[in-house]
Amino acid sequence: MSDAALLTRAALVAARAHAGQTRKGGSIPYVNHVIEVAHLVAEAGGTPEMAAAALLHDVVEDSDATAESVARDFGPCIATLVACMTDDPSWEDLPRGERKKLQAAHMSGAPRAVRRIKIADQTSNVRDVGRLPAGWNPGEARDYIAGATLVVDACRGADPGLEAAFDAARAEALAHLSAREQGGDPC
Amino acid sequence: MSDAALLTRAALVAARAHAGQTRKGGSIPYVNHVIEVAHLVAEAGGTPEMAAAALLHDVVEDSDATAESVARDFGPCIATLVACMTDDPSWEDLPRGERKKLQAAHMSGAPRAVRRIKIADQTSNVRDVGRLPAGWNPGEARDYIAGATLVVDACRGADPGLEAAFDAARAEALAHLSAREQGGDPC
Repeated sequence: MSDAALLTRAALVAARAHAGQTRKGGSIPYVNHVIEVAHLVAEAGGTPEMAAAALLHDVVEDSDATAESVARDFGPCIATLVACMTDDPSWEDLPRGERKKLQAAHMSGAPRAVRRIKIADQTSNVRDVGRLPAGWNPGEARDYIAGATLVVDACRGADPGLEAAFDAARAEALAHLSAREQGGDPC
Repeated sequence: MSDAALLTRAALVAARAHAGQTRKGGSIPYVNHVIEVAHLVAEAGGTPEMAAAALLHDVVEDSDATAESVARDFGPCIATLVACMTDDPSWEDLPRGERKKLQAAHMSGAPRAVRRIKIADQTSNVRDVGRLPAGWNPGEARDYIAGATLVVDACRGADPGLEAAFDAARAEALAHLSAREQGGDPC
């Protein structure tokens, strides 16, 4: 399979899996997030397999897709990356702070390719949360960013460019939240 | 830019441009269609640039993106492919049959890369219409398929594999419509 066939196939599977799903509290289609994560990974020099895994990183967690269907359609390498990006189902009902601690512990022992995707994932999330879409208040957003920072800190050493992109997204999100809390408009 | 960076960037621009848009009469996100077109093109051996143009083929027609913004972000080659896939705005209010005749005449003189994307586009459309989503009746669907056949016939010689995929999609859609019109369930 060519790289273009692989990436468009992964995008199609993700688009179908996430059809109708939106980002928490907003109207942004969920698939836009996974495409953004894949783009961050690819722009930072990630391989097509990493970008494909980024496109697919939430299909097992959030759709009818299974680890087996990903392995069948995309092979064991991409399936392993997706499996490492998938939260343990037992974490689902935990408070966000606890979940982030478990994600961080999991990432500290994960392969470098997984840590690269995870940093991009957290960057996309922090960018979105920092804009305070409907359904988020500044306190929740700050909590999320603190948790994401914990996760990314556990991934450091994987890719300086992606780490810098996260740091920039975090700084921008915190500045935006401060401006909002002070009643100003940062834009 | 790597092929993975190009394709994920094109997918991201398309996902943002088509956010909230759905296929006519249904709930399928519009972006799923352009990703399917890109996947058909890539699976048939199309280049990454062709697949990127397929991802972007409706952004000028259906969003705030312009020919200039596509050229700025993706370069002249991809911008030319997208421009060739964009209907003339003066066709917008014409009946579908007239519009399809104009598309066919336009395609008969188009570069081979454009004709390949157009065949994939019509294949995706015929697959969707043949399933009779909400908003389509069998007569409209048959009219659409006849128009798409005219367009694909004008593209023939571009890619035997894509042409065969269109022919198969057309046959399946017509069989499904016949079964529906006879009151049976073809599934």
